[in-house]
Amino acid sequence: MAAGNDIDVLVSEVGPRDGLQSIKSIMPTVAKKAWIAAEAAAGVREIEVCSFVPAKILPQMADAEEVVRYACTIPGLTVLALVPNFRGAENAIAAGAHKIALPLSASETHSKANLRKSHAEVLDEVRRIAAVLKAMPAERRPGFEGNVATAFGCTLEGAVSADKVVELAAALMAAGVDEVGLSDTTGYANPAQLRSLIRRVKSAIGSDKLSGVHLHNTRGLGLANALAALEEGVTTLDSSLGGLGGCPYAPGASGNIVTEDLVFMLDAMGLKTGIDIEKLLAVRQILREALPNDELYGFTPDAGLPKGYSRGWGVTRAA
Amino acid sequence: MAAGNDIDVLVSEVGPRDGLQSIKSIMPTVAKKAWIAAEAAAGVREIEVCSFVPAKILPQMADAEEVVRYACTIPGLTVLALVPNFRGAENAIAAGAHKIALPLSASETHSKANLRKSHAEVLDEVRRIAAVLKAMPAERRPGFEGNVATAFGCTLEGAVSADKVVELAAALMAAGVDEVGLSDTTGYANPAQLRSLIRRVKSAIGSDKLSGVHLHNTRGLGLANALAALEEGVTTLDSSLGGLGGCPYAPGASGNIVTEDLVFMLDAMGLKTGIDIEKLLAVRQILREALPNDELYGFTPDAGLPKGYSRGWGVTRAA
Repeated sequence: MAAGNDIDVLVSEVGPRDGLQSIKSIMPTVAKKAWIAAEAAAGVREIEVCSFVPAKILPQMADAEEVVRYACTIPGLTVLALVPNFRGAENAIAAGAHKIALPLSASETHSKANLRKSHAEVLDEVRRIAAVLKAMPAERRPGFEGNVATAFGCTLEGAVSADKVVELAAALMAAGVDEVGLSDTTGYANPAQLRSLIRRVKSAIGSDKLSGVHLHNTRGLGLANALAALEEGVTTLDSSLGGLGGCPYAPGASGNIVTEDLVFMLDAMGLKTGIDIEKLLAVRQILREALPNDELYGFTPDAGLPKGYSRGWGVTRAA
Repeated sequence: MAAGNDIDVLVSEVGPRDGLQSIKSIMPTVAKKAWIAAEAAAGVREIEVCSFVPAKILPQMADAEEVVRYACTIPGLTVLALVPNFRGAENAIAAGAHKIALPLSASETHSKANLRKSHAEVLDEVRRIAAVLKAMPAERRPGFEGNVATAFGCTLEGAVSADKVVELAAALMAAGVDEVGLSDTTGYANPAQLRSLIRRVKSAIGSDKLSGVHLHNTRGLGLANALAALEEGVTTLDSSLGGLGGCPYAPGASGNIVTEDLVFMLDAMGLKTGIDIEKLLAVRQILREALPNDELYGFTPDAGLPKGYSRGWGVTRAA
């Protein structure tokens, strides 16, 4: 989703999905609801609240339907759900998600490991979902986003061809998604790579069809990558409160880019996110209480805001 | 110092000075020497090895002279020493430092707390040092860098006027330094602020007179700020191995930007640093052994390099 008229950048919170699916702890439904409500109250406009996968595979997501239904009652919030396949999409649509997102891994090895499907099989699912959506009345039809995962490299395959990413982005559009996002699932991306891939994908599918980027901070480059994406005109950035999720194969390495640090950066740069940074920082306490054994990441929460801080810190003074 | 003909970016290691002066532990001289030698062997071209301050104030720096003398025996290494005043400069020059750097805090409150001197008093010291340097034979004369500290805000004063920073940069040049650097001592900077201040300072003192930027990662924006500085044409970036130093007023918040993560970012972007990233990562073990009770920062060391990694990761393939 593009940023609205009144904001410059849409920060799309993915912690309740990407964060919670990556840790062992199962967050109680009541805490998920409190988290989502508190972030929305802090001004977050879009939250990926869950993944519609079987509970035996991801018990953390067993309450997906209830969480979506609850989140949809919050005024002004766009409620996203990740779906791995047609079945998941049916459930997400039935629950009333405003938007569904389906990952297609550029690394076919990863696609088979993650979704147990080849590229062709994933694209078949996309076509089936698109057909269902097309048959729905427009006013109830959720948005449909395809995400090219492992777009910057894969822990199984190593380097991923940029040509392949561009080809898959176009294939997703042809199969019926509304827009395509790029995911650095493995935290392999660097700013130069990101810039060149964003340009190529935009040129292949149209500038307005690149929905956003999903970055991880696995090697500490997350916010540098976010800055590069912004400078390429990307206005939607995924992030996770507390950088929740960690990285199973890399102890100490954080998962998604940290919402608190991202919002501080954008706000300090004078960009409008619609988010109240102080209220956002306070939401962290919900995670700390609900997940006492999980590590939270982020620097701004520990360091606090600069003394006398206000939006556009130093920028207007120096301009 | 500008990057050489064979490298694109000069990574200037400041850990032995800024890192070690910020922690309570005192690193044994032998470990300092091993650290400096190992980084130089990994390809690091410039190291700020110590600060010439009285041992009763900073016992961590009591061996400054010995460390400088040792570092100067390493071929190809530029040896920097920080000096707070004329007396420190005399000692650094006597020890044979290739370059001395003197901080002038844009926040006068901080300057008085840190060096117990007003702006005018610091500039007097600069003039006295410049006179001594001028009297030296050119072939033995060290370089002289002024650093505007707290250039992006101060924990004591809060916001710092960009006009004041520009004025002090010009005053340092007039007082006789060769070049001026900008230091985000407090980790307050954001990429937009950094860009505008770099442009203003360059325009005031000349593009070739901005020696580099010194960034902290206190709020997680360190590498994003480094990227912004690079894009503004800055080719010297300070950093600290293991992000050593922490931040006394912010538990969990790292100090200087982490050399390992910075070099990974630059290398991945296809920029030449002259540094072998694998050898650099191995140097961390020296810190771990010599400072067993101090926290080391950095994501790349934990996560490791991407599978099949090589310089310019994904960039050339996607160009």
